[in-house]
Amino acid sequence: MQGLMMDYPLIINNILEYGNLLYPDKKIITKLPNGLIHEYQYRDFYKRVKKLANVLKNLGIESGDRVGTLSWNNYQHLECYYAIPCMGAVIHTINIRLSVEQLTYIINHAEDKIIIVDATLIPLLEKIYDQIKTVKHFIVFNTDKIETKIPNILYYEDLLSKEVDDYTWDLQDEKQAMGLCYTSGTTGEPKGVLYSHRSMYLHTVAQSQTNSLGLNTRDIVMPVVPMFHAMCWGLPYSCIMSGTNIVMPGPHLKPESLAQLIEEQKITISAGVPTIWHGLYHELKNNPRDTSSMRYSLVGGSAMPRGLIESYENDLKIKVLHAWGMTETSPLGTVSILNENHEDMSQEEQFNYKSKQGYPICGIEIRIVDDHGKKLVWDGETMGELQVRGSWVAKSYYKVSPNSESFTDDGWFRTGDVATITSDGYMNITDRTKDLIKSGGEWISSVALENELMSYSGVLEAAVIAIPDSEWFERPLALVVAKEDHNLTEEQLKAHLAKSFIKFWLPDKIIFTTEIPKTTVGKFDKKEIRKKYWLKE
Amino acid sequence: MQGLMMDYPLIINNILEYGNLLYPDKKIITKLPNGLIHEYQYRDFYKRVKKLANVLKNLGIESGDRVGTLSWNNYQHLECYYAIPCMGAVIHTINIRLSVEQLTYIINHAEDKIIIVDATLIPLLEKIYDQIKTVKHFIVFNTDKIETKIPNILYYEDLLSKEVDDYTWDLQDEKQAMGLCYTSGTTGEPKGVLYSHRSMYLHTVAQSQTNSLGLNTRDIVMPVVPMFHAMCWGLPYSCIMSGTNIVMPGPHLKPESLAQLIEEQKITISAGVPTIWHGLYHELKNNPRDTSSMRYSLVGGSAMPRGLIESYENDLKIKVLHAWGMTETSPLGTVSILNENHEDMSQEEQFNYKSKQGYPICGIEIRIVDDHGKKLVWDGETMGELQVRGSWVAKSYYKVSPNSESFTDDGWFRTGDVATITSDGYMNITDRTKDLIKSGGEWISSVALENELMSYSGVLEAAVIAIPDSEWFERPLALVVAKEDHNLTEEQLKAHLAKSFIKFWLPDKIIFTTEIPKTTVGKFDKKEIRKKYWLKE
Repeated sequence: MQGLMMDYPLIINNILEYGNLLYPDKKIITKLPNGLIHEYQYRDFYKRVKKLANVLKNLGIESGDRVGTLSWNNYQHLECYYAIPCMGAVIHTINIRLSVEQLTYIINHAEDKIIIVDATLIPLLEKIYDQIKTVKHFIVFNTDKIETKIPNILYYEDLLSKEVDDYTWDLQDEKQAMGLCYTSGTTGEPKGVLYSHRSMYLHTVAQSQTNSLGLNTRDIVMPVVPMFHAMCWGLPYSCIMSGTNIVMPGPHLKPESLAQLIEEQKITISAGVPTIWHGLYHELKNNPRDTSSMRYSLVGGSAMPRGLIESYENDLKIKVLHAWGMTETSPLGTVSILNENHEDMSQEEQFNYKSKQGYPICGIEIRIVDDHGKKLVWDGETMGELQVRGSWVAKSYYKVSPNSESFTDDGWFRTGDVATITSDGYMNITDRTKDLIKSGGEWISSVALENELMSYSGVLEAAVIAIPDSEWFERPLALVVAKEDHNLTEEQLKAHLAKSFIKFWLPDKIIFTTEIPKTTVGKFDKKEIRKKYWLKE
Repeated sequence: MQGLMMDYPLIINNILEYGNLLYPDKKIITKLPNGLIHEYQYRDFYKRVKKLANVLKNLGIESGDRVGTLSWNNYQHLECYYAIPCMGAVIHTINIRLSVEQLTYIINHAEDKIIIVDATLIPLLEKIYDQIKTVKHFIVFNTDKIETKIPNILYYEDLLSKEVDDYTWDLQDEKQAMGLCYTSGTTGEPKGVLYSHRSMYLHTVAQSQTNSLGLNTRDIVMPVVPMFHAMCWGLPYSCIMSGTNIVMPGPHLKPESLAQLIEEQKITISAGVPTIWHGLYHELKNNPRDTSSMRYSLVGGSAMPRGLIESYENDLKIKVLHAWGMTETSPLGTVSILNENHEDMSQEEQFNYKSKQGYPICGIEIRIVDDHGKKLVWDGETMGELQVRGSWVAKSYYKVSPNSESFTDDGWFRTGDVATITSDGYMNITDRTKDLIKSGGEWISSVALENELMSYSGVLEAAVIAIPDSEWFERPLALVVAKEDHNLTEEQLKAHLAKSFIKFWLPDKIIFTTEIPKTTVGKFDKKEIRKKYWLKE
């Protein structure tokens, strides 16, 4: 017997309408490419979203069509985040840091019909425009007129100015696709995750829960995480549902600019990858600012080194909220908020918890399993492959079949991460399954070694990989970048590691270098590192 | 084109599993009928829920069957709130304050197969047991052995003790009915609202949003609102999703007992109707307690008089969170949390806002319309019928057809309330459509007059109704109960009202009485009042 409740769909349109109705005065503030500040209110944003929906309709975009975006974080991109899915199409957020080959591949794979592009990224588009055959129109913003070899350029503001600011949404199916985001996997071609309105809506509500990000009308949120990275962690939707002010840094991701925005705009929550926080920490240490408005820095994308969490909290009095997710999980999966049980712990133990990726938010289930798929115990020690399922987790990739490698037979997504989970549900990623060092029948966590190395005062960055070993099968090798004016020796670092790890875990060799290769989203590119060092040793 | 995200149903089972997994140590504390405290943890609760599911299955309960509960707020009732829907059946929470005729009517209408009953309510059940033919078993708790004329009594603890604490849920359909609650309307037979797992799940998530009730792991919640009243406002589900401790007052609803629980259990949130807060206020004034743990008192069911909100905040330093909902809305619809725009207002203006019912939480849409169904402006002045729609709003009543009176052609529920809405979305109920006084072509709000009368220091309670008038069609009549040791005159009160209202609004007559008739849920019973005074005047 079914209940007798209204059939009211969970669609992005309702977030837009709610935000406009309840919070018309709230602000969206963008630092433009020229450094000036653009500011308008939800009520203005709302009208322009409806105009953009009309633009797309009149250009022939139909339900389910993909519309690509090539842009930094700014208000125009936010307009795309709403207009495209609300009128029934699919926003494909293109990662501008991909290689030309990958860009061409994903645009052709997505079969984008229109690409909306930030004027500053026209040079990038020029490299590929003649290889992406499905794209009928390029719409450029942040310019009135641009010199380019790309034919048939349309101008965003010009198009909007010709449309009315009314549009009657006709979307009803909450399972309709709303967004497409490709993962820049370290192996194989990028794979697309196709979000539905329902999945993104539920993700959005979850982010506003007090046990989750706790967004509310008093927040001023600055997403530093790019809008082309895992749907900007869902913030474009959860901020508007929760009525926060939104501050968009545009292309200005240098620490100085971010520090200035935090102080001037009185940011309460900022979100980004550890690399960003690393740079910002040094900026704020060297040029102190008033950052007292900050409730917390949301960190994800890769693990925040424990030392950096401590530095933020102790030196800058800024709380760090460590979270975990993947493109395949919309992305928010876990958050590391301490609860009242942790209050009696020593500061040392509390930082242990804060450096974990945290507990699953309600709607997400996690488990760890061994090589045979057997579920492992939550004791904070046992390592296993992290698997996840829930309302906002992918069940397959776009136009990829079969997906058996990434999904289990019983319906869980295989993250490729290796993790432990404490008895109170705090998950800690110890490695990627690919990066785990399998030595003499034991597992050695490359991430644990990296974090310990990076906690040493003279170390700027450290990466650990496995190298082949005839006796032990694999052994750890460490790459270390020293901070300026620091002379480090292998012996010093090994002695440091020996305080925390058994001898068998210590890298056989530590190599000093000037830079560690990184992926387009700022993670250590272990594939590249292995390419360079695996065979040489 | 549909998204490629997991088909993960929104079902109560997931709340139960999440609560047990993340918060096994959290406590459920009950004040038993004998005054002793029963305390156990989520982990114990979880096992007993599974045992109860086995009990029901073995007694022949199948998917969609209705299982009635006749009980106060206690841990056994909470077990029913989960075991019944999680195993696929429908929990029918029976309002113990209904008349014998109504009780018989709703149990027969619901066709309950089993009734689970608190031993203290066996005398009530004895009055009707032989008229409710569909009920095959009565399961009694809070006793090992009871003397009763009801045949074939089963004992809750006895049944549970024979079952294993494991049960594999097989529910998949989120639209499956999970709960049935009858509204004690002031006219006609009670009507049943049939909740689905999906609607209740979405309602639960919404309650944990920071812009809503903001429940979180640090809360200790005491639902004083009965579990037979509008699903206990959803708290049995949202508390467990959010990992709060839960304190159940059992049958002990006297102010002294509640005050003691607040102090001893360090309650952070309590929830109940204004009548409860009224009594508690006087108790706390006369016998002060440490209530500093309180984050807020959640008030709904009927409007909290503004004077009482002020008294709580000024005299007791307890914040009041005014909310609105109905059985048909699961029930949470609106909450009156002030935002940063209200901070610059005078305390007077702030209390004006706090005494409104507040803004719709995300997932709920509200509108006001005139007699012709035309949508009215949100200016805080214009009064219209309040209509509502959303994910957790009823679309029809159980086994009632057609429902045209309560639902509009375009899919909104007609609340029967008359309200204003400010431009920033704060709704204020000014009357029931039935209670609105239509005088000389103008509308006079009975609720506004009542609130103003009750703000006068010597007034304990005041109710205003319409009485027929040959010249004006209707005119207001006020009933007033004076506080002990207060001598009031009609002239005093009219002079008081004249400060806030135009002369035309003032009641033609004010009658002093010792008690105002109330419904089973503590609201003024205007039907009864009209019966008594309408013709006499």
